[in-house]
Amino acid sequence: MSLTHIDEKGNAKMVDVSEKQMTKREAIAVGKISMKLETLDMIIEGNTPKGDVLATARIAGIMGAKKTYELIPMCHNIPIDSVKVELKPNRAEKAIEITAIAKCTYKTGIEVEALTAVSIAALTIYDMCKAVDRGMVIGDITLVKKTGGKSGTFEK
Amino acid sequence: MSLTHIDEKGNAKMVDVSEKQMTKREAIAVGKISMKLETLDMIIEGNTPKGDVLATARIAGIMGAKKTYELIPMCHNIPIDSVKVELKPNRAEKAIEITAIAKCTYKTGIEVEALTAVSIAALTIYDMCKAVDRGMVIGDITLVKKTGGKSGTFEK
Amino acid sequence: MSLTHIDEKGNAKMVDVSEKQMTKREAIAVGKISMKLETLDMIIEGNTPKGDVLATARIAGIMGAKKTYELIPMCHNIPIDSVKVELKPNRAEKAIEITAIAKCTYKTGIEVEALTAVSIAALTIYDMCKAVDRGMVIGDITLVKKTGGKSGTFEK
Amino acid sequence: MSLTHIDEKGNAKMVDVSEKQMTKREAIAVGKISMKLETLDMIIEGNTPKGDVLATARIAGIMGAKKTYELIPMCHNIPIDSVKVELKPNRAEKAIEITAIAKCTYKTGIEVEALTAVSIAALTIYDMCKAVDRGMVIGDITLVKKTGGKSGTFEK
Amino acid sequence: MSLTHIDEKGNAKMVDVSEKQMTKREAIAVGKISMKLETLDMIIEGNTPKGDVLATARIAGIMGAKKTYELIPMCHNIPIDSVKVELKPNRAEKAIEITAIAKCTYKTGIEVEALTAVSIAALTIYDMCKAVDRGMVIGDITLVKKTGGKSGTFEK
Amino acid sequence: MSLTHIDEKGNAKMVDVSEKQMTKREAIAVGKISMKLETLDMIIEGNTPKGDVLATARIAGIMGAKKTYELIPMCHNIPIDSVKVELKPNRAEKAIEITAIAKCTYKTGIEVEALTAVSIAALTIYDMCKAVDRGMVIGDITLVKKTGGKSGTFEK
Repeated sequence: MSLTHIDEKGNAKMVDVSEKQMTKREAIAVGKISMKLETLDMIIEGNTPKGDVLATARIAGIMGAKKTYELIPMCHNIPIDSVKVELKPNRAEKAIEITAIAKCTYKTGIEVEALTAVSIAALTIYDMCKAVDRGMVIGDITLVKKTGGKSGTFEK
Repeated sequence: MSLTHIDEKGNAKMVDVSEKQMTKREAIAVGKISMKLETLDMIIEGNTPKGDVLATARIAGIMGAKKTYELIPMCHNIPIDSVKVELKPNRAEKAIEITAIAKCTYKTGIEVEALTAVSIAALTIYDMCKAVDRGMVIGDITLVKKTGGKSGTFEK
Repeated sequence: MSLTHIDEKGNAKMVDVSEKQMTKREAIAVGKISMKLETLDMIIEGNTPKGDVLATARIAGIMGAKKTYELIPMCHNIPIDSVKVELKPNRAEKAIEITAIAKCTYKTGIEVEALTAVSIAALTIYDMCKAVDRGMVIGDITLVKKTGGKSGTFEK
Repeated sequence: MSLTHIDEKGNAKMVDVSEKQMTKREAIAVGKISMKLETLDMIIEGNTPKGDVLATARIAGIMGAKKTYELIPMCHNIPIDSVKVELKPNRAEKAIEITAIAKCTYKTGIEVEALTAVSIAALTIYDMCKAVDRGMVIGDITLVKKTGGKSGTFEK
Repeated sequence: MSLTHIDEKGNAKMVDVSEKQMTKREAIAVGKISMKLETLDMIIEGNTPKGDVLATARIAGIMGAKKTYELIPMCHNIPIDSVKVELKPNRAEKAIEITAIAKCTYKTGIEVEALTAVSIAALTIYDMCKAVDRGMVIGDITLVKKTGGKSGTFEK
Repeated sequence: MSLTHIDEKGNAKMVDVSEKQMTKREAIAVGKISMKLETLDMIIEGNTPKGDVLATARIAGIMGAKKTYELIPMCHNIPIDSVKVELKPNRAEKAIEITAIAKCTYKTGIEVEALTAVSIAALTIYDMCKAVDRGMVIGDITLVKKTGGKSGTFEK
């Protein structure tokens, strides 16, 4: 077994997808950003009735997914069918849990787009709250499921 | 205390920096991507003599830092003095440890740029190795130090 | 009837187009920028024999259409078949009339791309003439026709 | 008097700002998007308690201002101090009124950034509501005030 | 015979590809950057064991190809199947030879993407070595082969 | 002497400019694109009275210069004072000669921006004329002069 993005000379390359089939694909990624309880409460309150931290992070996550091919050097520019970002404040865990679901109908998968959506949403929350809590930690970013493509379904 | 990026009506806004002083600023952020030992060994070997996973991730991290203002909605477009990304494979931890150091001389800080560099470097490693290890986890992304600016030094 | 870009919790989302058919689509949008007669005459003269205000606006409109998915948060990145921007100085109206025609063969429409082309062309004219006429007004930007897709033809 | 963005041969050029002074500058631009009353009501309701049309448009406007130099060919890439976008539904006028306030401390003005913020916010509202109202009209986009710079204050 | 990107009034336009067939296409472009022998030797040594000039240029070339539609006004945004960039130091010629191979399955060709990859790779080498050799020359950038599409195979 | 963009471990880095002085800087770069005489004549004619090949290339070159920091991995995002692109058809040489002049007042130079402007202008001409002349060659891209900065004036 070997790394698909490295050629026989050890050089980075885009994987050639010209012979691959178009299939429907979906990827679900998760992550979280941990913070002080008082920061979390500010965000939750700010969100009622119409504060914007979570709305901004959700939109940034969706827009970030569309920029994946620009950010990740060997990623293909793929036509995206949909991206959805969900943010769930969890007081017990003192964290906001982030889930991104991305879909495409294409020759290569959409896992990195889902992971990028989670990462950018988390960074946006950090940015908007850093003045009150510089010690926030972004973590546990991982793929939990993907379907479609030659390698089939992956579930964690 | 209140969130600086939310105005009195609860709406997101860019913080107005027009009255702030230019000062030299530096931010150091860290993070890691955990993986199977055999994936890590492939990357390490691939890196000798001239495999490109780590080089690609390092470059993507630097370029990602420059795109922070485009990705994070309320971030200012700041002139960056330097960005450096270091990647250290750690076999004991089965992870690659990522450090980003960013500098600017400006009216607002460069913490989010450093955190973005770490995140994009991690996502790039995920992308290049996903075919052999879809279960990799990105985590522990946090600011460890920042200097400069009105709020002074922060150290974790 | 409800807004397609808002989910059941009131959150913004990209519409999922994974089940939609590829069809040929075309959208025609118009708009105008009004100005002082002497500004209009400068542009017209400048355009003979080879002044560049209108050429620059036309090109900016076409390039802007290609950036629609980056600018408009819930827009899909769609493969564009063509964009054409026409600019017609109208001395009687003291305005430049802008028409954009955009085409794609895809699962979702190209109306916003046409409207973006018109908007960016108008902003470019504003930028290039603002030193002589800061009071110019951009207006009447609207879709006049679209064909293709499940909702069929729209004509104003 | 002549167009500053056209050289002596009629070719487009960026105005050379190397000899200009840094001054504090502010620009206020307005515009509106007109629609059916029922569309407006959907947006207003959707916004209570946490619908996202207005939040998305506000964020898109701010992000669009930061992309002005990429969209408008002869615009300088200027360091922006702040951008604020306000959206006010007006049932009597069957429209959403848009105001953008942009600031910089630089050698050239920030008018086009404010106008771009208004335009992109309007286009975002169009995009999110087009499925229920394709006939919306974007208009009356204009600069209402600018301060700073050699040409001084402009007020409409 | 006439220029396909100029309409009957002499205005620039995107070629309309809505009636064209999807076919597999490949383009190979070459170019080189000439320099002092000592600069070339620094790059070669730097590349052993893990210097980064060539890796950075290779990655920049691949990423540049993906940005072609943003850079070249009348280019279509096409889904790219693969891009590969090869860099070969040639001591006899005191140059680094650059080859880019790009593939797509689409309605229009991928020649300009291959040429852009070569150009950006060359500019990256210039940037990284300019402190020791400002007189480097980039040249001989040309298409050597393209296959697919209605116009068939071209070979130089 | 050693490469400034490579650190002591051989890794690519952005040069740290935090200790450098702001100075006025200017860079002049040239290049050309060679073609069949009949292609050149089509461009020249197309340019009279208002064909757009040269206008499009000129604008693309200016916009490309502003994107340099996004394209060239280790380039700083610098505030640009002006960019000018000149295109001169030369029938004797069967080529279009390209000159770009870029200025900034900053801590690092603007040579790569000038070279990028030349490259993107040349690629744009290639794109717009490729249907009639696929064998065009881009070459002789080089810096002819730069002033300002610690290293002083360079002239070729």
